[in-house]
Amino acid sequence: MLHPNTPREAHSIKGNDRNLLPKQELLLIAAKRLLHRQAIRHLTNMLGRLHSAEIAYIIQQLDYPEEKRTTFDCLPDDETRGQVLSEIDLETGSQVVMNLSFSRVADILRWLGPDDAAAILRNFPEEQQKQILSLMNREDSTEVKDVLKYEEGTAGSIMTTEVFFLPENSTVSEAIRQLQEATEAETVFYIYVTDKDEHLTGVLSLRHLLTVPGTSTLQSIMTRQTITVNPETDQEEVARLVAAYNLLAVPVVDHDKTLLGIITVDDVIDVIREEATEDMLKMAGAPEEGASLHSSIPQATFARFPWLFTNLMGTFLSGALLWYFRFTLQEVVALVSFIPVVSAMGGNVGLQTSMLVIRGLATGQISQRDLSRVWVHELGIGLLLGLLSGTLVMGVGWIWHQDYLLGLVVGISLLLAFLVSTSLASLIPILFYRIKIDPAIAAGPLVSTTMDIVGIAIYLTLATTLLIYLV
Amino acid sequence: MLHPNTPREAHSIKGNDRNLLPKQELLLIAAKRLLHRQAIRHLTNMLGRLHSAEIAYIIQQLDYPEEKRTTFDCLPDDETRGQVLSEIDLETGSQVVMNLSFSRVADILRWLGPDDAAAILRNFPEEQQKQILSLMNREDSTEVKDVLKYEEGTAGSIMTTEVFFLPENSTVSEAIRQLQEATEAETVFYIYVTDKDEHLTGVLSLRHLLTVPGTSTLQSIMTRQTITVNPETDQEEVARLVAAYNLLAVPVVDHDKTLLGIITVDDVIDVIREEATEDMLKMAGAPEEGASLHSSIPQATFARFPWLFTNLMGTFLSGALLWYFRFTLQEVVALVSFIPVVSAMGGNVGLQTSMLVIRGLATGQISQRDLSRVWVHELGIGLLLGLLSGTLVMGVGWIWHQDYLLGLVVGISLLLAFLVSTSLASLIPILFYRIKIDPAIAAGPLVSTTMDIVGIAIYLTLATTLLIYLV
Repeated sequence: MLHPNTPREAHSIKGNDRNLLPKQELLLIAAKRLLHRQAIRHLTNMLGRLHSAEIAYIIQQLDYPEEKRTTFDCLPDDETRGQVLSEIDLETGSQVVMNLSFSRVADILRWLGPDDAAAILRNFPEEQQKQILSLMNREDSTEVKDVLKYEEGTAGSIMTTEVFFLPENSTVSEAIRQLQEATEAETVFYIYVTDKDEHLTGVLSLRHLLTVPGTSTLQSIMTRQTITVNPETDQEEVARLVAAYNLLAVPVVDHDKTLLGIITVDDVIDVIREEATEDMLKMAGAPEEGASLHSSIPQATFARFPWLFTNLMGTFLSGALLWYFRFTLQEVVALVSFIPVVSAMGGNVGLQTSMLVIRGLATGQISQRDLSRVWVHELGIGLLLGLLSGTLVMGVGWIWHQDYLLGLVVGISLLLAFLVSTSLASLIPILFYRIKIDPAIAAGPLVSTTMDIVGIAIYLTLATTLLIYLV
Repeated sequence: MLHPNTPREAHSIKGNDRNLLPKQELLLIAAKRLLHRQAIRHLTNMLGRLHSAEIAYIIQQLDYPEEKRTTFDCLPDDETRGQVLSEIDLETGSQVVMNLSFSRVADILRWLGPDDAAAILRNFPEEQQKQILSLMNREDSTEVKDVLKYEEGTAGSIMTTEVFFLPENSTVSEAIRQLQEATEAETVFYIYVTDKDEHLTGVLSLRHLLTVPGTSTLQSIMTRQTITVNPETDQEEVARLVAAYNLLAVPVVDHDKTLLGIITVDDVIDVIREEATEDMLKMAGAPEEGASLHSSIPQATFARFPWLFTNLMGTFLSGALLWYFRFTLQEVVALVSFIPVVSAMGGNVGLQTSMLVIRGLATGQISQRDLSRVWVHELGIGLLLGLLSGTLVMGVGWIWHQDYLLGLVVGISLLLAFLVSTSLASLIPILFYRIKIDPAIAAGPLVSTTMDIVGIAIYLTLATTLLIYLV
């Protein structure tokens, strides 16, 4: 949630404000000390003097769930609890409210924007969601329900329904008066203008309002065409839009342009950070949900094992290949000394390519239409890198084992592995993207595991063939 | 640059505005077609009707530098060129201005904010920078020089010096009048308040101004304490601050609180995206500078080879280990079938841990003080994952080769490898972070290469020892 209307809130930070992070660290240490000493009154006093972002940091960083809960309970009032909850990561947020009675949860949630309240509620089972909603007042719960309707990850799920909008025929003076009275609307950098049926027809900046005569109607000064999203739009697309057009907020409208809510830039920042983290972690099979550094050890193990298991199966296949070629290996023992080279290097080149492609797709730098262009580009790089590395390895093979043929086999294998690897690593993510499978989750492990196997297969097949011919 | 004062600019987008990305795609196809047909006049017409963000997208996506330059030249005026340049990625930006005469560059740069102009200028050699600056008018060039003073990646290098600020003793009515007249200031969501020596003393929101009597002085209604950064502050820290406190802009002040400029949220979004991309690509040794999907093939090869070379050296070491243990391998051939398992799996577990730790450090989720906590946590996970995978591998070894001892050797090796791997992957990034080495660049390859070697060493040492004892 953005608090533009209360710069006191957005700006107040006591003491030395030059350097936030060291200060946060000091606050955390102080809070821990008070918790260990069970000095609850002192803790309450200290928290009362902090910005909600600082309290959120402390609660997130505490080691034990009970400490988090105790600290959350120490907050002076439900308004502060609500603010802290809106700044905290979701996992911690659910931890601190999970043990509260439903009426307590309802009391706190009413201080949150509908988007943040919905995000917290999503962590409760559906039955409990309904019970909590029934304990809120009708207006608040309706707004939250409006957001809950939309699937996680869509524009609808991160929008706030508290929007400041005015009818087209209002005058500028009326608009200014309304602005002075509005207290609920989350952000008022843009004033949205609607027709009598609440269809969005235009937009105005706050500053523009100050530069025109008070008697003008909004209709006569507003900008007609506005960038909008639908509630079903993917939140990543919303983020790309806000970033591309440098917007502070984007309105969410339904198919006939009825204004449903807005998404503010601070929520977009959260989306961008989350998505980047998610992509990285997904590629390493450590999904943030469950595998985070704050998850319990068994929970993290459980979250990380599936990806390792897939890789393990891959390595068994590689092992089976080595076993299949064991007679070749026994005949020319020197071959073993290059197994790590051919099995790992293809995967390494592939990792570079797939990272570039996956990130390029996520940031919109490349699109699904770029399949062949990216492939040719990466294949060219694979060729050059393969020639470079292949020559190097050939030299090493020759010097190390005094065996010209061995060097040739390793060098050619490496080159071939690079060509296959850059191809797979550029094609698979784009193809996955086309058929709406998240490239980050699938392409990372798939490419590297496949390349381990392909590298060994190329190497030992080539070695066996050349050995039969020439030995 | 943010254009909050001109919602016409920030919002105008013609035609079907529901779905930006497909539309951008269509525009790109149209532009390509016109370029191939050399239909420059049609291209000029088309570009004249587009938003600068859309033109930026088209230029970035074009395949050839000449096409990019032609399109850039087709733009109706230097103001548009300036706007497009501020939205384009830096690499493309330099491509399109590199061939222009210095006076043309100077003409275009004056339409850019000082931060964006400085970013473009940084790509020219110092001597040329001076020449271009000398062709700009004194006021503009002084502002750009102010930004150029600061190193890339610092708050100073991304701040704009065009700030709207007023003296403490101004009245609210005066402030509103000033606001109406100000045209240059980049963003006016916050009104900064300074004392007579331009030291920052407070801040106000635009909306707050509307809710108080016109005769109040700013001093009496402003918020005194504000969150600020220094020009030397790392841009990642600025991003964390803006994200944590949900700010729209953060003022940059020097040691005695003199207001130097502000950093706006749209620039922070760029920083967050860049840093996330950079971290991912650095870990795979594909630095964005040079290795991007739009770089030439030789350039990308050159950028990517160093990391591969390091890995290659690592695999040679693994190979040397296999060669050293060749007699063990010849004696018990079945051992080869588990080489891929022990060499790859340690690295895989390490990758998960190091990704979590590196990302955690980048987002501020963990700090350098968390060394022992994170280590114990990851070691615990390594133990559980090692027990799970080790047992599984032991079973496979037993069933596959009917060799109980072999299974035991592989299982124990895997468990040990996991413990070493999770330890290295949690400790190394945090230690690197402490001594100010970027953990992303160093920890990724180091951990995985080391683990390949360590895995094989543990496996074959254990196998040789047990064989001597028991066979």
